[in-house]
Amino acid sequence: MSEAARLIGVGVGPGDPELVTVKAIRALRNADVVAHFAKAGNGSQARAIAAEHLRPDVIELPLLYPVTTEIPKDSPAYCAKITTFYDGCAAAVAAHLDAQHSVAVICEGDPLFYGSYMHLHVRLAARYRTEVVAGVTGISGCWSAIGMPIAQGDDVFTVLPGTLSEDELTRRLGDADAIAVMKLGRNLPKVRRALERAGRLDRAMYVERGTMADAAVMRLTDKTDDCAPYFAIVLVAGWECRP
Amino acid sequence: MSEAARLIGVGVGPGDPELVTVKAIRALRNADVVAHFAKAGNGSQARAIAAEHLRPDVIELPLLYPVTTEIPKDSPAYCAKITTFYDGCAAAVAAHLDAQHSVAVICEGDPLFYGSYMHLHVRLAARYRTEVVAGVTGISGCWSAIGMPIAQGDDVFTVLPGTLSEDELTRRLGDADAIAVMKLGRNLPKVRRALERAGRLDRAMYVERGTMADAAVMRLTDKTDDCAPYFAIVLVAGWECRP
Repeated sequence: MSEAARLIGVGVGPGDPELVTVKAIRALRNADVVAHFAKAGNGSQARAIAAEHLRPDVIELPLLYPVTTEIPKDSPAYCAKITTFYDGCAAAVAAHLDAQHSVAVICEGDPLFYGSYMHLHVRLAARYRTEVVAGVTGISGCWSAIGMPIAQGDDVFTVLPGTLSEDELTRRLGDADAIAVMKLGRNLPKVRRALERAGRLDRAMYVERGTMADAAVMRLTDKTDDCAPYFAIVLVAGWECRP
Repeated sequence: MSEAARLIGVGVGPGDPELVTVKAIRALRNADVVAHFAKAGNGSQARAIAAEHLRPDVIELPLLYPVTTEIPKDSPAYCAKITTFYDGCAAAVAAHLDAQHSVAVICEGDPLFYGSYMHLHVRLAARYRTEVVAGVTGISGCWSAIGMPIAQGDDVFTVLPGTLSEDELTRRLGDADAIAVMKLGRNLPKVRRALERAGRLDRAMYVERGTMADAAVMRLTDKTDDCAPYFAIVLVAGWECRP
């Protein structure tokens, strides 16, 4: 055992293995147990980023979602399944903490910004020592990769889920200076219409796998189809009046 | 000369020297010239974080603001001074790029998220090769340091400058799930009143020097004075209904 029992949420950044922090590497190297969330049968990008920093004798704890997009997120069935899942994950992690193991949870992006780690954190932070290693978010990775100054000065910056209604998206797109729209997937046609109605379509950039070698980046007006992966995003820069 | 001429905005994170990425360290080590923004007479925190990664023979280029908070930001005098300043900085950097030097600009947090680097980027990106190394933002550093899950699921997350009017702050604080209010300083009493009016004061956390050894963190309702540095922030977590 290399460190006292504690839970550490470790942000490993948006995808580029070099966008991992020195602190994350140290946390991964020192952990007795390394956990990661993934869909059963799918590889985990975060796990792949972290791989080179793990100890040879590390205990791995994969936490496999029982469901992702197959059931609507607002249905009672989804809520029951996912709550039972997170309770089970917390119990599995707690068993290691009780055995005086340190447990690092690998998180894409930043652990407390739209990440699954926080479901463990809120269940365990009252009972165990916890630490969170901040990471570069996926959206930072995207606007950096395309060199888009996103917000400046007194800009209001807003992150919107593409799951909102078209009217709600339209209202909010018109009410912020700088915008990131996440969770595109099947919401892309609706997001596109809302951007048009809000008068922001001309400035919208579409980004897919932003920091990866096979990134796809284009003005949204140049995208001729409505196919987008769930993790693609749309960015609209603020700072329209530049000194 | 170690690399071809190019301008690199290098995010060095929120303050903790370990929250620097592997990519930032490589960029700093390889740069012929390293520039940083600072107020004349003040030390630069970003420069201090980067110090250990600079080459002994590096050329340093400090870019010293002629004015910061002495003149109102919306005055023509401020605008003229700061525009002349950024034009001069861009010219100084361009001279090095023309001499085939690579120029890294040290940026606190993330270069394209409310950072000064972008004033160089927009002036030079059309003429020179540029690259941006994303960094951990100051706000991520703060919510991680205090272990506050900031946003989850379909939350709307908004960054607000404390410089907005009280009515505008009140409206926007009531319209988002998760919130970071920046630029507190003398705006703190106004921000406090707006949080109260929006019904969000009870959940507001005040964070000063979030990732530094001398951090000050408290519920805003426990803060008995109205003294706040300009870079202090207030965080309000979304995700109120946790499964």
